[in-house]
Amino acid sequence: MALTSTGEVRRIGLTEPVWWGWGPASEHEPLPDEARGLLARLGIPVRPTAPVGLAQVRLPPARLPAAARDALAAIVGLGHVHTHDEARIRHCRGRSTTDLLRLRAGDASAAPDAVVLPADHDEVLAVLRLASRERIAVVPFGGGTSVVGGLEPARPAEQPVVALDLARLDALGRVDRESGTVELGAGLRGPRAAALLAEHGLTLGHIPQSWEYATIGGFAATRSSGQASGGYGRFDDLVVGLRVATPVGSWELGRAPASAAGPDLRELMLGSEGAFGVITQVVARVRPLPARRIFEGWSVPDFATGTRLLRTLAAADLRPTVCRLSDETETVGGLARPPRPGGPAVAIGTGTAEAAQNAAQNAAQNTAQDPAQGGCHLVTGYEGVGSVVERRAAEVAGVLLAGGARRLDAAAGPDWERGRFRAPYLRDALLDLGIFAETLETAGFWATLPALYAGVRDALAGSLSAMGLSPVVMCHISHLYETGASLYFTVVCAQGEDPIGSWRAAKGAAGDAIVAAGGTITHHHAVGTEHRPWLGAEIGDLGVDVLRAVKRTLDPAGILNPGILVG
Amino acid sequence: MALTSTGEVRRIGLTEPVWWGWGPASEHEPLPDEARGLLARLGIPVRPTAPVGLAQVRLPPARLPAAARDALAAIVGLGHVHTHDEARIRHCRGRSTTDLLRLRAGDASAAPDAVVLPADHDEVLAVLRLASRERIAVVPFGGGTSVVGGLEPARPAEQPVVALDLARLDALGRVDRESGTVELGAGLRGPRAAALLAEHGLTLGHIPQSWEYATIGGFAATRSSGQASGGYGRFDDLVVGLRVATPVGSWELGRAPASAAGPDLRELMLGSEGAFGVITQVVARVRPLPARRIFEGWSVPDFATGTRLLRTLAAADLRPTVCRLSDETETVGGLARPPRPGGPAVAIGTGTAEAAQNAAQNAAQNTAQDPAQGGCHLVTGYEGVGSVVERRAAEVAGVLLAGGARRLDAAAGPDWERGRFRAPYLRDALLDLGIFAETLETAGFWATLPALYAGVRDALAGSLSAMGLSPVVMCHISHLYETGASLYFTVVCAQGEDPIGSWRAAKGAAGDAIVAAGGTITHHHAVGTEHRPWLGAEIGDLGVDVLRAVKRTLDPAGILNPGILVG
Repeated sequence: MALTSTGEVRRIGLTEPVWWGWGPASEHEPLPDEARGLLARLGIPVRPTAPVGLAQVRLPPARLPAAARDALAAIVGLGHVHTHDEARIRHCRGRSTTDLLRLRAGDASAAPDAVVLPADHDEVLAVLRLASRERIAVVPFGGGTSVVGGLEPARPAEQPVVALDLARLDALGRVDRESGTVELGAGLRGPRAAALLAEHGLTLGHIPQSWEYATIGGFAATRSSGQASGGYGRFDDLVVGLRVATPVGSWELGRAPASAAGPDLRELMLGSEGAFGVITQVVARVRPLPARRIFEGWSVPDFATGTRLLRTLAAADLRPTVCRLSDETETVGGLARPPRPGGPAVAIGTGTAEAAQNAAQNAAQNTAQDPAQGGCHLVTGYEGVGSVVERRAAEVAGVLLAGGARRLDAAAGPDWERGRFRAPYLRDALLDLGIFAETLETAGFWATLPALYAGVRDALAGSLSAMGLSPVVMCHISHLYETGASLYFTVVCAQGEDPIGSWRAAKGAAGDAIVAAGGTITHHHAVGTEHRPWLGAEIGDLGVDVLRAVKRTLDPAGILNPGILVG
Repeated sequence: MALTSTGEVRRIGLTEPVWWGWGPASEHEPLPDEARGLLARLGIPVRPTAPVGLAQVRLPPARLPAAARDALAAIVGLGHVHTHDEARIRHCRGRSTTDLLRLRAGDASAAPDAVVLPADHDEVLAVLRLASRERIAVVPFGGGTSVVGGLEPARPAEQPVVALDLARLDALGRVDRESGTVELGAGLRGPRAAALLAEHGLTLGHIPQSWEYATIGGFAATRSSGQASGGYGRFDDLVVGLRVATPVGSWELGRAPASAAGPDLRELMLGSEGAFGVITQVVARVRPLPARRIFEGWSVPDFATGTRLLRTLAAADLRPTVCRLSDETETVGGLARPPRPGGPAVAIGTGTAEAAQNAAQNAAQNTAQDPAQGGCHLVTGYEGVGSVVERRAAEVAGVLLAGGARRLDAAAGPDWERGRFRAPYLRDALLDLGIFAETLETAGFWATLPALYAGVRDALAGSLSAMGLSPVVMCHISHLYETGASLYFTVVCAQGEDPIGSWRAAKGAAGDAIVAAGGTITHHHAVGTEHRPWLGAEIGDLGVDVLRAVKRTLDPAGILNPGILVG
C-alpha cells in the first residue's frame, strides 16, 4: 500500500485511474480474508464480480457529425478531439457507486460522442459558440468524480454530446503574495495545484476525499468542502474571483474581498455545476504552508454527547482545522481508523461487517475501537503556526476532557490521516466481492441535527432492510459551523438482484427524510441529476424559476449539461 | 449632548428624526465658534442656511387613484395608508447629502404618493399582487437611510408610487439558542433589535453608523457592514435564512449553515435593494452579549505603514472586533476622536477645517491628535469573553508595537466609541452653515489598495478643487479581510453655487478612479441609483443581464423599486 504519505505533494505521481473504478490499479488490493469471513457471518453474501474487459463495454453509436468534429478540431487542434472508445468510456458518467456498477457491467450507454480538450479560456468560448450554433450538448468535465449524476446529462437521444475536458487548463497564474490570492486553472487536479502552490510556500488547504482526481473548477462548480474546512473554509469561502466562459461570452467576477455592489454573483456560479457556464479560472485565497500539524484521536461517550461537544467548540470559536466525529456504528466500523500495513485487522470491510453484526446484537458493547469501552471515535486536527496550533489543540482538549471525552493513543489521529483517501479504493474492493457501498451527506442547524441524523439513518436502514440487504449504516460529522454541521452517511449492504434500483429507493427515502427534518439535500456533493427531485423543496419553486431564468440568459440554446441542476 | 452612552440598549428611546436631517432635534447642536473660525481661515465660506418650514416643502400632486388607495386600505387597514404631506415628505428619498440639500430647500419632488404600512408578510404579498395588477411602483422602505439614491425610483411621471414602510414588521420571532439563530422582523431598527436580543443575553454585533435608524431588512437588502465587522462579520455573513415576499409569491431560503444544493440564492437576495422582492424576515446568527469590551487608541507612523500592519493582522487571523485606521488628514480632522462634552474643542468640524488648513501647509506637521508627533490614528476594539478578548488585544498590541505603533492615552479608544454615531449629526450642523459634507466607500485586495486610495483621494480633491470648493478629503480603513480591506472617504468643502452638481461631478470622478484601480464601486452602501453607471464595469454586461433576468422572473410587472440596482 503505497498511499501512506502525509503530505499533499508526494501524491502527485498518481497515474490514470482504472476506467471502472477509483485510482490506479497499482493501489488496488483485495479485502483481507478476515473481512470476508465477517461479511459471511453477517449474512452479506460475497459474490465475486470482476469488471468486464474494456473491449466488452457497450457504447452507443457516435452521433457527432463529421463536420462538427472537424469544426471542433479547428478550434482545439486535431489531436485534442478524441472519439475512440476508451476516451468515451473514461468520460462516461462520474464515480457514484451506481456509475461504477454500470461501468463494471459494461454499460457505457451514457458515454459522450467525443472528448474535446481546449487549451485555454478562448478555446472554451469558441467551443461553446459552436456547440450553441450546432445544438451539441456540452458536459464540462473536470476530474470526473461526480457522485450525483452530474456528468450524465439528459438530452434527446439523437442530440450529439461532447465532454469538454479541462485538463489542459492547468496553469498556476498570478501569485499575489500581498493579497494572499492566486489564479488557478480550472483543470488543475488537487495534487498538482498543491504541488505548484507548495513551490511558493502556499496551500489552499482544500482536501476533500476526491482530492486525488477532482479539479479546481469542479471544486467551485459543486461547492466542494474539504476535510480541513474548519480551518481553511469550504471551497466557496476560498474563491475570491472567477473567470467563466459562457455561450454568450466571457464573465469575470470578483473585484474585492467583499462588496455591496448588488447580489454576490460569484455565489451564483459557485454550485452552478456547469449548467450556466464553464469556470476556466479561479482566483483563490491561499495560506502559508502549515509549519505544524497535529492529529489527535478521542473517544466520546456517545454520538449525542459528541455532537453537543462539537457545538460547544463551534460556539466558542474553537473549531479544529479537521474534525470528524463518528457515530457508534462507524466507530466500530473503523472508518476513521483504517488498518496499518501489517497491523491488526481493523480494515474498513472488516469493521463494517463487525459494526453491522454488533449493532444487530448490542450497540452499547461494540468494542472494536477499544475493547475496554464503547463510545464514539473523534478525530481532531490542527494546522498552522506552531504556537497557535498547540494552543488551539490545548483549548479544544480542555473542552473535550471536561465534556467526558477520553484521549486515545497517540497513533489514533495519524491513523486517520494516513487513510484519509482510502475509502473509494476500498469501495472497489467491496464491489469486487459483489458488496454495495455508497455515501450521502446533508447538513442542518444544530437544533435540527438529532432528528435529521435519526431520520436519515432510519430511512436508509429501514429501506434496505425491507429489501433483505442487511445494511450497515454509519455516519459522521465532519464540517462544523457556528450554527450547525454536516452529516455524512456511509452504507454497506448486500447488492441483491437490483443494486441500482435498491439504492435509488433507499436514497429516495433518505431524501424525503432530509426534507422532512429540515436539512439540506446536499452539503458538498452538489445536485447533479440525483438530487433534483428535492431541489424544489430546498430552494422553492421560485428558486428553480430563478435558476432557469439565469440559465436561459447565459445558455440560451440550453447546451450546457442539460438536465443537470435545472432542466 | 445626550448621546454619550456606550451600550446599544440605552439608545432605543430616540424619537423620530427631523424630517430634513438626521436624528431628533434634541440631539442637534450648532458647530462650536472655534470651528467656524477655522472654516473661515480655510477659505470655506460659512453661509447659514436653515431648512425651509415643513409647510413650504413642494410636493408633487398625488397620483394614486382613490380606488387603488381603497384597495390598499382593504389590505392593511385604513389607518395604515397615509397620504398626508408629512408622511410623504418623511418617505422622500434617503439620507445622502444631496437628498438632504434638496429636502432642506423644500424639494420633495420625489415623494411617494402614499405610505403603506403592512402588518405582516401576507399583507406585503397582497400589496405586491395589487401593485403588480395596477402597475403601482413600490419602494420598500426600512429606515430610510440610503445614501445612494436607493429610495428614489425611476418611473414614468404618471405612474403612482407608494412607499412600503415595514415598520410594523418589528417582531423578534423564534430564538433558537441551540443553533444560535433568531428570526428578526425586517422592520426592526438597530436599537430595538438589540434591545429585544439583549433580553435573551444575545447580540447581532452589527453596528453600522446608520444603526440608530436603519433596519434589519435594509441591512440585508444593502449588504450592510458594521463597525464591528472584524469580530462579528458583515451583515451578509450573519444571515442564515430569509423570508421574502415577491410579486409572484413567497420565497423561503436557508435550510442549513452551508449547502451544495446549487448556487446560494440567499446571496442573490442579499444586496437586491428591494428590486427583486421585499425581505420580511431575516434568520440571523447571534452571539452572546460580550462580557468584556476593550477599545484602544494608537498612533502609527503613516497611513501606508498602518495599512501594512492591518494586512499583517488580517493574515495572522488577528483581526480586532473593531479596527479603524485614519489617514493623515482624517487624523488631524479628528473624525475618530470627537470632543468630550466640556473638553477641548477637537470637534469634527473643527478638526476637519484644521485638517484642510494643515494639509494645505504641511501634512507632516499636522499635530491636532498629538502635538508631539504626526502619524495616523488607529482605533482597535475587542468584544467577547474576557480572557479571549484580553489575549487578542495583547497579541494585536504586540504586532502593532513591533511595527512602530505607539499607544495613545487610555481615553483614545473610548473617545471613538462615544462618538461612533455622531457623524450624521455633525453633517447637519455643517449643512446649517452652508458647508458640504459627504462620504463614499470602496474596497479592494491588499495589492490594489495603495493605488485605489491615492486614485480616489486625488479624484475627489482634484475635482472639487478645480471648482474652487476648498475640499478636505479624509479617509479611513475600517473593514479588514484576509485578502483586502475597505476605504471610507469623507469630504468636506464649500457648497458653492451648485453643490449637488459639484458633488455629482466629484463622485463621478471617484467612481471612474475606483474602476480604474480595480476596486469595488461600493463596499457597504449598495448600488441604488448613484452607483448604477459603474455596475456594468463591476459585474460585467452579463452580470447586468443576469440581474435583469432574475428581476423579470420575480417582478414581471417591474413595480419594485424601478431603476434601482437594475433598470
